[in-house]
Amino acid sequence: MNDVQVPGFLAAAGSAGLNKKREKDLGIIFSRVPATVAGVFTRNLIKAAPVLLDMERIHSGRCQAIVANSGNANACTGDQGMKAAKAVARATADALQIDESLVMVASTGVIGKVLETRGIEAALGGIVRKLDPSGLPDVSHAIMTTDKVPKIVSRKGSISGKEFTVTAMTKGAGMIRPDMATMLCFVCTDIAAPRDILQESLTKAVNKSFNIITIDGDTSTNDTVLLLANGLSGITLNSTESLEAFQDLLDALLIELARMIVRDGEGATKLININVEGGATTSDAFAVAATVADSTLVKTAIYGEDANWGRILAAAGRAGVPLSPAAIDIYFDDICMAKSGQGMGATAEAAVTEVLKKDEFTITIDLNAGKKKARVITCDLSLDYVRINADYRT
Amino acid sequence: MNDVQVPGFLAAAGSAGLNKKREKDLGIIFSRVPATVAGVFTRNLIKAAPVLLDMERIHSGRCQAIVANSGNANACTGDQGMKAAKAVARATADALQIDESLVMVASTGVIGKVLETRGIEAALGGIVRKLDPSGLPDVSHAIMTTDKVPKIVSRKGSISGKEFTVTAMTKGAGMIRPDMATMLCFVCTDIAAPRDILQESLTKAVNKSFNIITIDGDTSTNDTVLLLANGLSGITLNSTESLEAFQDLLDALLIELARMIVRDGEGATKLININVEGGATTSDAFAVAATVADSTLVKTAIYGEDANWGRILAAAGRAGVPLSPAAIDIYFDDICMAKSGQGMGATAEAAVTEVLKKDEFTITIDLNAGKKKARVITCDLSLDYVRINADYRT
Repeated sequence: MNDVQVPGFLAAAGSAGLNKKREKDLGIIFSRVPATVAGVFTRNLIKAAPVLLDMERIHSGRCQAIVANSGNANACTGDQGMKAAKAVARATADALQIDESLVMVASTGVIGKVLETRGIEAALGGIVRKLDPSGLPDVSHAIMTTDKVPKIVSRKGSISGKEFTVTAMTKGAGMIRPDMATMLCFVCTDIAAPRDILQESLTKAVNKSFNIITIDGDTSTNDTVLLLANGLSGITLNSTESLEAFQDLLDALLIELARMIVRDGEGATKLININVEGGATTSDAFAVAATVADSTLVKTAIYGEDANWGRILAAAGRAGVPLSPAAIDIYFDDICMAKSGQGMGATAEAAVTEVLKKDEFTITIDLNAGKKKARVITCDLSLDYVRINADYRT
Repeated sequence: MNDVQVPGFLAAAGSAGLNKKREKDLGIIFSRVPATVAGVFTRNLIKAAPVLLDMERIHSGRCQAIVANSGNANACTGDQGMKAAKAVARATADALQIDESLVMVASTGVIGKVLETRGIEAALGGIVRKLDPSGLPDVSHAIMTTDKVPKIVSRKGSISGKEFTVTAMTKGAGMIRPDMATMLCFVCTDIAAPRDILQESLTKAVNKSFNIITIDGDTSTNDTVLLLANGLSGITLNSTESLEAFQDLLDALLIELARMIVRDGEGATKLININVEGGATTSDAFAVAATVADSTLVKTAIYGEDANWGRILAAAGRAGVPLSPAAIDIYFDDICMAKSGQGMGATAEAAVTEVLKKDEFTITIDLNAGKKKARVITCDLSLDYVRINADYRT
């Protein structure tokens, strides 16, 4: 896994005894030099203590280390939760011998349980001693909750003949929907950029990736995306060309991670692209896509590989946007299943049933009301989703 | 079941071969004299043909018969669907020897399949011959889809020494959420009232009952509530007292039916009252209640009898209304599980775990931001919900 290394970044993970189901539940990402930082956080009004702390600290624009744990979200824990988040940051700063204000904190797991910091404080020394350029994959393991697979991707680009690297990791699985998800995402890069430009770039990439996916329509208290840019490549994003080259690479990486989150959605057996075309406005198109993507009736029908296009139309009809039922066409991949609001019959249905057997396909809903488009990526709702979420804390 | 009879109303049901899983799938309710009619219909923009037909016909204010089928919703069927709905109405009118404009139509079942009318037309004669004052329960059977039990209730009241009767039946089970549900409801009464007053009374009762329940957040193309008042009791609602007496009884009946729908929700094992108190506005309180009631993470946790109050708080936080996390209290029945946004610990959790074992309980969320209240009634999300909806059309 040396291919995910980013110059100047070290990482390691270990166990703080917080996550019974995982060998590793605590990780540190460290940059040899303080990095410029950008962040995107949950819009849920209930924000976990680490989110509140990071939102404060990000104003400085500087960060040198991220400490992240799974097994406990440290959310809905009030003053005690904030004390715990600060204690974790302080202990991490002490172990790394850096200023406390340069440490950001992230937590994921059960909500409402006060975070026990003793295990974390005891584990930090060992983790810091293990810090290594090849350690990023270990951190991607340590932040997993109901995730079945770790999610880390890396790409290299070049600007004016100089090479740069972006490596990003994420965790997701449940509580995922547009406007951020129960997800953490850490992006490490060796480019340099002014803080505002970095923030704008990250926001754009998040809007094209994590903000268009949904697992179950629930948003989390802990969503955090942090981007650290340490500048060690010697490249500064100071031209349109360099900015575009970086943006393209960042977009592609985060879209890839977002798709990995959906594919690893709790109990998911299929990834479905919901494309809405022909909208009068982009927000109309997005509202229809998001409503269809979150419909439990649509998601269970897809799990059952049932070409129940009527449920798609019914979900569109309650999206709160004006639409003309008799104008709507529905496609499964290239197969037209409904034209002008009516089914295309048994032959089309037989072809769609074959599409439904695939583990990824696209449902296109053409509203025929304009030229605007939107996409939401979702998954099916399976028996395992219910099993996982009925038993989550046991 | 003689206790559900309403003077002047006859009913019967039979099989038109539309619903493989049920013995009866076609029913007629008939009033000896034309009745005043009020109606409430789905707000989904995708409306089934029978809904569109009834919305047209209800303008006359008069109705003498309802013909209802299960097994096919006749939705998303375009002109052919409207032709089929009209053909069913015409055949029913012919068999009853009444004017076609006095017949209302209702359908429930699979969306997107053209309604075959031949079986219906063939069955109508036999059903009309069986029409009988004791036939209403048979119709309540004929409209069932994934319902496990028929739902029919009846009450008697008295106004100025005269007795009146209201009998109401419904079907529900899936695609149920505030703003109407995949549900049909037919109400028969022998009072007399001007059409406007009847409509106002029905709308009020629906807002207190069917519009505060949710099974899965999906609204249907076919929701129809029809109230027929034939006046044979000799009572006219022409005073505040008489109107109140009727309203109280109608409210109580429809609330009882709405609760029966939730209790019979697809796969439901528990009925949960979500009470939100302390809202700055009623719509704030309702938005929080509805968001919590539709959260799949909350519903699966309840299915798993897990006192995961953090998910309740997280759902409240994305309801789109201003709220102060640190002000919120959460109760399960009388047990305070979270105070000022923080958990009350193991003793409270043990007590709540006992509450969760009950088949009905109340979750109270006090926002402590004002004096407004709202309630939404929901059910849990179980493995059986997924099984039912993955296999619905097979």
